[in-house]
Amino acid sequence: MRGVIMHAPGDVRVEERENPTIVEPTDAIVRLAASSICGSDLWPYRGAEPVDHTPMGHEYAGVVTEIGAEVKKIKVGDFIVGSFFASDNTCEICHAGYQTFCIHRQPGAATGAQSEFLRVPLADGTLVATPGQPDPELIPSLLAASDVLGTGWFGAVAAEVGPGKTVAVVGDGAVGLLGILAARQLGAERIIAMSRHTDRQALAREYGATDIVEERGDEGVAKIKELTDGLGAHSVIEAVGTQESMMQAIRATRAGGHVGYVGVSHDVSLDGLGLFFSGVHLHGGPAPVRRFLPDLIQLIWDRKIDPGKVFDLTLPLVQAAEGYQAMDERRAIKVLLTID
Amino acid sequence: MRGVIMHAPGDVRVEERENPTIVEPTDAIVRLAASSICGSDLWPYRGAEPVDHTPMGHEYAGVVTEIGAEVKKIKVGDFIVGSFFASDNTCEICHAGYQTFCIHRQPGAATGAQSEFLRVPLADGTLVATPGQPDPELIPSLLAASDVLGTGWFGAVAAEVGPGKTVAVVGDGAVGLLGILAARQLGAERIIAMSRHTDRQALAREYGATDIVEERGDEGVAKIKELTDGLGAHSVIEAVGTQESMMQAIRATRAGGHVGYVGVSHDVSLDGLGLFFSGVHLHGGPAPVRRFLPDLIQLIWDRKIDPGKVFDLTLPLVQAAEGYQAMDERRAIKVLLTID
Repeated sequence: MRGVIMHAPGDVRVEERENPTIVEPTDAIVRLAASSICGSDLWPYRGAEPVDHTPMGHEYAGVVTEIGAEVKKIKVGDFIVGSFFASDNTCEICHAGYQTFCIHRQPGAATGAQSEFLRVPLADGTLVATPGQPDPELIPSLLAASDVLGTGWFGAVAAEVGPGKTVAVVGDGAVGLLGILAARQLGAERIIAMSRHTDRQALAREYGATDIVEERGDEGVAKIKELTDGLGAHSVIEAVGTQESMMQAIRATRAGGHVGYVGVSHDVSLDGLGLFFSGVHLHGGPAPVRRFLPDLIQLIWDRKIDPGKVFDLTLPLVQAAEGYQAMDERRAIKVLLTID
Repeated sequence: MRGVIMHAPGDVRVEERENPTIVEPTDAIVRLAASSICGSDLWPYRGAEPVDHTPMGHEYAGVVTEIGAEVKKIKVGDFIVGSFFASDNTCEICHAGYQTFCIHRQPGAATGAQSEFLRVPLADGTLVATPGQPDPELIPSLLAASDVLGTGWFGAVAAEVGPGKTVAVVGDGAVGLLGILAARQLGAERIIAMSRHTDRQALAREYGATDIVEERGDEGVAKIKELTDGLGAHSVIEAVGTQESMMQAIRATRAGGHVGYVGVSHDVSLDGLGLFFSGVHLHGGPAPVRRFLPDLIQLIWDRKIDPGKVFDLTLPLVQAAEGYQAMDERRAIKVLLTID
């Protein structure tokens, strides 16, 4: 089969790889309906994370073609969506909703999903079957549920978004935009998108943003305060992962408010005393997408949400390199890779 | 009147000071029933915070002797307990329970409470009157409510302590010990005190600790994991404020669990990536004691809790210097200063 390999930063190639096979009796093999490039794939692409001939991709949706002997719930022929962390979904930590910290978790489990087939460990715990075979136009949204939607949703939940609250979203990538969608679904009264890109602002508004703040850093914080009687937002979703974005999120939150951070932190260091006197709640980390998948799939199935709109560039898998470049240069929010 | 002045680190003197008078029409003057030394007073005493001829003390309980023209709820003759932050208790932030971040807050308002009289700003918002004049044996507990009990309680609330949960408490000073008392009152199933001092372990057990862990750092974390099926505690109260104690608290908490930190952070720096992959909730800061005061006073009044037991050394105000020394050398958990 063909799959994306990142040889080194900036060097993305589509190459022939061995088809995956069942290794553990709890595995399933999935034929991907489509694949996608994640904002987090740009970290190694830009040299900010190590990479060396690495199979890329961790977002996936498709049809199960084979299952191991111990797989009971997932069946061959099911259309499934899965999380990028494999989890048993039965341990105490999974039951508490933190499947990314499952005691049997396999973080890199879905690595290599920019390809035709994928082996998924702990299939019964990791995968969720859709109610039936999806219409083709639902594929992008189902694929988004696998990571960026689930991550944005977790950011909103971690930020305790709810009715009557003012929410600010730092970051206008796919996760930030879907954080806006989540905030609206969760009943936020006012949603402030921090974005300086016109195309993204448009999608932000479509997803439910009521205000746009183009300023960043101190000015961005001042603007949020101005919009909230000087107090700051009740809830702030941080969807970037840099020192600047994290501080912007904390400082834009009122005392007693909540920061939900889902941007993978890169070179972020938090001053203890500053955090102490901010009085905010801080929660985040690798999103337990599995917790939300059943609800998210249903919302997509019922056409109540359309997270697939974050894909603004579609390319065949063989042109993956062009997709990476487009996202790196911010010409595309998110790239969908078609397979065949 | 007499009052404690810290001239420089380690140099504590009781000197003649001017009696406080009403400055703002929202002020009240309180004749202190007793005073006390707080663990946080040791930071400047040890040179870890700047100090220069500073009036000391911020925990107080006593009788109102004078009120400003705009004070409506608090009356002359009331026995009151107050918080170390003056707050209006009417703004949006106060209503949300974060009086230490009141839009009119006065952080240093109660400074100088190691003395005979104290001026308290925003008296109606800051002070809570007891149901009547307290029996003398209740004075230590009421004084404790003013800071260390309220702070330990906030730590427990911030750590989301509740029925069925395992709680670990980092720090066996007065705040940590009263965090244990709070955890028990809030229904925790199991309370692990991290302490290596026999006398403090005894009080910890009396307040509700079910287990004692003497190890610190990596070993302390390993011990907590061992006691919790390898998962870590649901809730951890951090009541020290050092890098080691903060990391111990975060690492002793299970993914999805809650750290409530109330030790004032000194030279603490949190690595963003480490925090991200811990998956914990983090909340803390200067405790909004005012939020809890009515309930805490009632629990004390009804003899349901006895936080005054943290005072294990009583001295007259004029011997304040000896009190500081005893706490600095950990010969005393907490010192009560009698006034007259």
